[in-house]
Amino acid sequence: MSETELPARIEALLHAMPPVAALQPRLAELEDDRCCLHAPLSANVNDKNCAFGGSLVSLMTLAGWGLATAWLERRGIKAEVYVADSQVKYRVPLYDDLDACAVFAEPPDADAVLRELREGKHASFRIQSEVRRGDGRVATSMESRYVAVVSDRIGPE
Amino acid sequence: MSETELPARIEALLHAMPPVAALQPRLAELEDDRCCLHAPLSANVNDKNCAFGGSLVSLMTLAGWGLATAWLERRGIKAEVYVADSQVKYRVPLYDDLDACAVFAEPPDADAVLRELREGKHASFRIQSEVRRGDGRVATSMESRYVAVVSDRIGPE
Repeated sequence: MSETELPARIEALLHAMPPVAALQPRLAELEDDRCCLHAPLSANVNDKNCAFGGSLVSLMTLAGWGLATAWLERRGIKAEVYVADSQVKYRVPLYDDLDACAVFAEPPDADAVLRELREGKHASFRIQSEVRRGDGRVATSMESRYVAVVSDRIGPE
Repeated sequence: MSETELPARIEALLHAMPPVAALQPRLAELEDDRCCLHAPLSANVNDKNCAFGGSLVSLMTLAGWGLATAWLERRGIKAEVYVADSQVKYRVPLYDDLDACAVFAEPPDADAVLRELREGKHASFRIQSEVRRGDGRVATSMESRYVAVVSDRIGPE
């Protein structure tokens, strides 16, 4: 899979999920070590006119999922990536559009991950996500663990 | 506010939030110590044909919010209730409709809560939420802290 196809594939997966499409997310950034999603406040607003906590968690969870999925696909592995657990802190309300970014809490060890998956084991990723306000303050932050399980290999062996 | 108006008010608040309405939640149970929401899998499905993690967290968060909001309203307090932090464990995939239930991790001390709010302080609630599968296994569980701040008093003084 080429670098140009990967963002389109991730974005198509997002929009194929009804509860995700409703949040109107856009893949804003997809690097090997960082994935960011943008979504309008209007589609994600709560009864207090700020961002709904569930939307914040959804977008942060998806940014982490996109990060791990793309990292694996770039290395020729098509895997199912699941979030396993999360610790969320809602720090200050967000009255802006939502920009959720995810990075690895520690860089994955590619050799170890590929070996685990080749042996049919789960590979694990620790990911940190956050949503910042326009003024730079962190509105919501999340530390999560994701697990990947190989579905089938893609690309040349 | 009467006991019959309260569930209708909670449900109207849910459906007034665009990202919540998209999940098609229904208030299934609202007791003084328990609040449950139901939502169809079709509106909450992910790319793996099971319940999307963000939907699970959204519904558990809303069930807890409904529990605390209703508990306060029954005691004559109209307060803004915010989720402050959450620890989520995604245990097993859910291929059924979503039934999210929230209970107090410890029964609130009504006198203490009312005193804190009357003094203009935050009141805090510890709430446990979970989504169980049809076979009784817990698919996802969450421990959260919510804070309430008085907006204005309702009902007779």
